[in-house]
Amino acid sequence: MDTCKSMNERLNQQINFILEIDKLKKIYRQSLISDGSREENDAEHSWHLAVMAIILKEYANDPGLDILKVVKMVLIHDIVEIDAGDTFIYDIEGNSSKLQRESEAALRLFGFLPEDQQDEFKSLWEEFEAKETSEAKFAAVLDRLEPLLLNTRTEGHTWKKHHIPSERVFQKNLHVKEGSVELWQYINTMIQDCIEKGYFDHENK
Amino acid sequence: MDTCKSMNERLNQQINFILEIDKLKKIYRQSLISDGSREENDAEHSWHLAVMAIILKEYANDPGLDILKVVKMVLIHDIVEIDAGDTFIYDIEGNSSKLQRESEAALRLFGFLPEDQQDEFKSLWEEFEAKETSEAKFAAVLDRLEPLLLNTRTEGHTWKKHHIPSERVFQKNLHVKEGSVELWQYINTMIQDCIEKGYFDHENK
Repeated sequence: MDTCKSMNERLNQQINFILEIDKLKKIYRQSLISDGSREENDAEHSWHLAVMAIILKEYANDPGLDILKVVKMVLIHDIVEIDAGDTFIYDIEGNSSKLQRESEAALRLFGFLPEDQQDEFKSLWEEFEAKETSEAKFAAVLDRLEPLLLNTRTEGHTWKKHHIPSERVFQKNLHVKEGSVELWQYINTMIQDCIEKGYFDHENK
Repeated sequence: MDTCKSMNERLNQQINFILEIDKLKKIYRQSLISDGSREENDAEHSWHLAVMAIILKEYANDPGLDILKVVKMVLIHDIVEIDAGDTFIYDIEGNSSKLQRESEAALRLFGFLPEDQQDEFKSLWEEFEAKETSEAKFAAVLDRLEPLLLNTRTEGHTWKKHHIPSERVFQKNLHVKEGSVELWQYINTMIQDCIEKGYFDHENK
């Protein structure tokens, strides 16, 4: 944007980043939105996670976690997908090249920002990916729970479409325990309930 | 959702709210997303505002404002539109019934939550609407700036479509000064630039 040439360079950089990340609204995911009418995009997903962080923070294993940091993480965690695309959690090949593709994307995209904010966003994203701090572990809980809720609401759409067995779903959610034992138990009950409802009938075929 | 009947009632209420607000992904606004391909929805808009709050907080008139509160406000500020619909800022008739429709929506929607969170969300929404605190004033700045950026990027799409004169755009942005003098100046320069580019040519016809 060339508006406001006379304004300070820092604000221009920030506005250019804000406009660049508008593209996240066109990165579509595997999950359908709850009425099943279309796929969810990354911007909507990130909004949903941020609201969930605020509502569900009482279930984090670490009661002293910094909730603003969790919210920042989930708001920006998928921005790299503007360049790298969405990698389906059960796509083995896609996941092997994910880190390289996303690291390059982080450099380009966060590179729009002034240096101090570039550093902050890059380090938030790396912390999220590493899943080592309380905040990153809890952000990862939310990032698993949201598509599970949508998938349950749409009668197992994504699992059916890609023939995912329930065993892999349980496995992929094991790490949730590190961020929230209570939500991990909730998720296990939810998957069990989905099995009983026949949302995994494809695995017996 | 009837999953997890044995889990505690509080978590079930929270999950039901999280699923109910998924509907925000289907409330479409007047602004087009930046590539002009379709209208933006409220969930995407709320995500964009939350990221902007984090990036632009240094421009708030009140340097001591609580940024987590601003982020919470912008994340939930449009949830009432699930029931009340999006009211176009230049729609005089729509705006006269907006408060009543949105108050009823707040009661029903936040009513999904446990009482303490219901109170928190309702009071955050009321604070946002009243535009009296530093946090609400700054949230209102972001809520104006984002559609202006999209509208500028799409060559004045919304103004042209509804024949909005530039004078009304300046007027509707006067309150931005209360939250951020610097961003208000930026917006004024941006509107002036749009006039020069001919995005308001409809007002001379």
